[in-house]
Amino acid sequence: MEEIEEGAFVLICHGGRRYLKRVASREIFHGKGGSIRFSDLLHRPFGIRIGEYEVYRPTFEDLIMHGLKRQTQIIYPKDSFFIALKMDLARGSKVLEIGTGSGALTLVFSRIIGPEGLVVSYERDERQYKNARRNVELFADTGNIRLLLGEPDGLEEEGFDAVFIDIKEPSVYVQKVHRYLKNSATLGMFLPTANQVIDVLRVLNGLFGLVEVMEILTRRYKTVAERLRPEDRMVAHTGYLVFGRKITGSQIS
Amino acid sequence: MEEIEEGAFVLICHGGRRYLKRVASREIFHGKGGSIRFSDLLHRPFGIRIGEYEVYRPTFEDLIMHGLKRQTQIIYPKDSFFIALKMDLARGSKVLEIGTGSGALTLVFSRIIGPEGLVVSYERDERQYKNARRNVELFADTGNIRLLLGEPDGLEEEGFDAVFIDIKEPSVYVQKVHRYLKNSATLGMFLPTANQVIDVLRVLNGLFGLVEVMEILTRRYKTVAERLRPEDRMVAHTGYLVFGRKITGSQIS
Amino acid sequence: MEEIEEGAFVLICHGGRRYLKRVASREIFHGKGGSIRFSDLLHRPFGIRIGEYEVYRPTFEDLIMHGLKRQTQIIYPKDSFFIALKMDLARGSKVLEIGTGSGALTLVFSRIIGPEGLVVSYERDERQYKNARRNVELFADTGNIRLLLGEPDGLEEEGFDAVFIDIKEPSVYVQKVHRYLKNSATLGMFLPTANQVIDVLRVLNGLFGLVEVMEILTRRYKTVAERLRPEDRMVAHTGYLVFGRKITGSQIS
Amino acid sequence: MEEIEEGAFVLICHGGRRYLKRVASREIFHGKGGSIRFSDLLHRPFGIRIGEYEVYRPTFEDLIMHGLKRQTQIIYPKDSFFIALKMDLARGSKVLEIGTGSGALTLVFSRIIGPEGLVVSYERDERQYKNARRNVELFADTGNIRLLLGEPDGLEEEGFDAVFIDIKEPSVYVQKVHRYLKNSATLGMFLPTANQVIDVLRVLNGLFGLVEVMEILTRRYKTVAERLRPEDRMVAHTGYLVFGRKITGSQIS
Repeated sequence: MEEIEEGAFVLICHGGRRYLKRVASREIFHGKGGSIRFSDLLHRPFGIRIGEYEVYRPTFEDLIMHGLKRQTQIIYPKDSFFIALKMDLARGSKVLEIGTGSGALTLVFSRIIGPEGLVVSYERDERQYKNARRNVELFADTGNIRLLLGEPDGLEEEGFDAVFIDIKEPSVYVQKVHRYLKNSATLGMFLPTANQVIDVLRVLNGLFGLVEVMEILTRRYKTVAERLRPEDRMVAHTGYLVFGRKITGSQIS
Repeated sequence: MEEIEEGAFVLICHGGRRYLKRVASREIFHGKGGSIRFSDLLHRPFGIRIGEYEVYRPTFEDLIMHGLKRQTQIIYPKDSFFIALKMDLARGSKVLEIGTGSGALTLVFSRIIGPEGLVVSYERDERQYKNARRNVELFADTGNIRLLLGEPDGLEEEGFDAVFIDIKEPSVYVQKVHRYLKNSATLGMFLPTANQVIDVLRVLNGLFGLVEVMEILTRRYKTVAERLRPEDRMVAHTGYLVFGRKITGSQIS
Repeated sequence: MEEIEEGAFVLICHGGRRYLKRVASREIFHGKGGSIRFSDLLHRPFGIRIGEYEVYRPTFEDLIMHGLKRQTQIIYPKDSFFIALKMDLARGSKVLEIGTGSGALTLVFSRIIGPEGLVVSYERDERQYKNARRNVELFADTGNIRLLLGEPDGLEEEGFDAVFIDIKEPSVYVQKVHRYLKNSATLGMFLPTANQVIDVLRVLNGLFGLVEVMEILTRRYKTVAERLRPEDRMVAHTGYLVFGRKITGSQIS
Repeated sequence: MEEIEEGAFVLICHGGRRYLKRVASREIFHGKGGSIRFSDLLHRPFGIRIGEYEVYRPTFEDLIMHGLKRQTQIIYPKDSFFIALKMDLARGSKVLEIGTGSGALTLVFSRIIGPEGLVVSYERDERQYKNARRNVELFADTGNIRLLLGEPDGLEEEGFDAVFIDIKEPSVYVQKVHRYLKNSATLGMFLPTANQVIDVLRVLNGLFGLVEVMEILTRRYKTVAERLRPEDRMVAHTGYLVFGRKITGSQIS
């Protein structure tokens, strides 16, 4: 049976609150439901009630949602796993990311491609780059992530299976990255505004086929059996998702 | 450069049509955009135009959407990848599935957990079981799938990291599967009706914590830059998703 | 040209804030954008800028959203106008309302049916009844509203064109009100939970035909031309709407 | 008790089918549920079962949805009643419509403003104009509609309470109609594409305040009590709605 150990991440829950913490046996956790000595958690199983709290082993989603330090809005798990699917990432994939941001998507990619794969991720903002580096060091251990500060100009590598662009002027990069990709490679983009989608659709033509534009909406329900109903409010927009696949210009007849 | 080879799956596209085919060099493909000799595809790269068609290397999503033989409605990729995330599946996970159906979700699980993992999947309908078997043989090669005809009654294995239930009377199985799971293990369910959600919420209490009920909606856009607008119609419902995590009853104070 | 007069309602706007006020020339308005003497508004046209504010003639929606005193959640205009449509209300309609609440829907009905029509509205909670009375006196002037404290038991009137039920146990009232309605009369209901919808569907059968269950969702956009995108969050649920039409049991063959 | 009379509209229903017919006692109705002699309906009440059919008095929504002859897509009731609310139409309002289309919205306006009001509606396509004329003659009787073929250039009338624009290049008309409106008058627009919304937002500034952009989504449910669930598919898009209110340019400090 897996036990809670020194240094392990734990998810401590109280009502709607979630605390992602690392077990430090000489410290005390303080939350809305009172205090817990971490030493009382040691050698217990995960998935237990203790006082007013429930304590679970955090999932990967918990780490992203509650553990990541954010400089900007992250790409949420509802979008990021769908993105990884559409980009067809699998064990061993080699993926290029333009715009690391806080590294949330980088971590998802890293997890799916495994130690046999590679994520090369560019970020031009130094503060964001440093923040992402910290997040990656804390939450990834596969060594398959290469974070770079700057632009993907001098990139020597080619043959990427997939590219993801999450940057303010995405249309500029659509042409730029085309040559780094394998034939039939997948392209993904995250675009907050309709104007960006319009701009990008103009430049995809001829370079990428099977173009798709979509939004993912998640609607949550209150979990009371006697009064099942959606939550009063929901996230209405994070970004538009755009996908395509590299096609070579030459026509074979 | 990856080339199209004999026996490879290809995705042949014409307008909104998608044909998932296996290259057989002595055969001819016939579609709405005319005929192609498969022999003309051999040794070409993927991601090319040929006549009125575009030919791509199929993604995993393409295989599920266009390759699977279905006896019933499948769990679509928009749901299945999100499910895998919420269930925290990763390389090496050991997952129990109640209700194999056509095997679409089984394949997603298999892909994510890899050869180090294991999916044990039960199906009580013999026709569905046989169909799933065929799909799995065609599209999975990891050997990490164990399909079983019947009920998860005599299950000797324990210590599953996760369980997924997609069956008409899910509330019966919530109690049944609890003991096969590790502490803090994740539970997922796919429920077509609100009545089923209400029933399930009644039995989760005390067995599973962090309960979440939600829907995932995908809204697609037409991809014309000059007239960006959502598609006229969309899929409005596939099923409600319910998640939880195993909690032990004993209260530690 | 219509001018702002003493005692008139005005809508004063500053950024996203809306203040619904009555012009009192000896008073001063204080808001986030500074102060305005109401006397400075007198004899001006509506639709003007004054200091950091814009001042408009309030629409009926503004009165409901910003003028009504609420004891409970009101039925929002996005729902209430759709309800009035589905209930086929028009000039001269005679409508029964079970559950006055704050009177928001009562006011919508009153406005559409005009002085030739009649709304009979029951409320069993005295505090709500008094609050609704106050709202109706302030915002309706047609004299076509009859608010009643209590249950629709001793109701002498018959021949209603439509009935609307917005009360916790709606299924009880479905049978109760049936005889007060004209043949083919419309029924509307507002139900916060899926459980209530299920209960109601069970009792409608045989009494009301053309049953419809639906939700109305409103998604708002940020209004910056260079960055068109939906608002980050939206109202995800107010209530389920149920409609039907009275049908007589007797079968004619 | 209201009876079915010669010449009356009736809504005949069978399963999901709706037939809007006019009673002609010498004719026979043929539908999926068999035949009915209209003479058998005469002097019956509405809201009855006859053979496999149910027969109701059609609502205004039924007339629009099932009675209107359409040349193009109409503005659906879910949008049109909301539009009328946002435009603050009431008995006696004077409203200008640019783009009559099939007249569906014209009829909604006419019904709400009543005989004391006026709708002036322009249509530049002659076939559409003739079709709208026919629809209006069939379904409106208030004499408050003035349909005009052409452009609103020589319009002599001023002092409109509201204007609605539903035409391909709406931004051109935003300036054009401004002077025909009262101060604080309401503006409404129906725009199929995001590009049009972007164009319109650019020209509204300074002419109209309180700008709102939104979509209305209707999600329907299957009406089986034991299996409550949304319909499988839904209408995902009809058009974006844009609203504003006339503001005079002059700043009063």
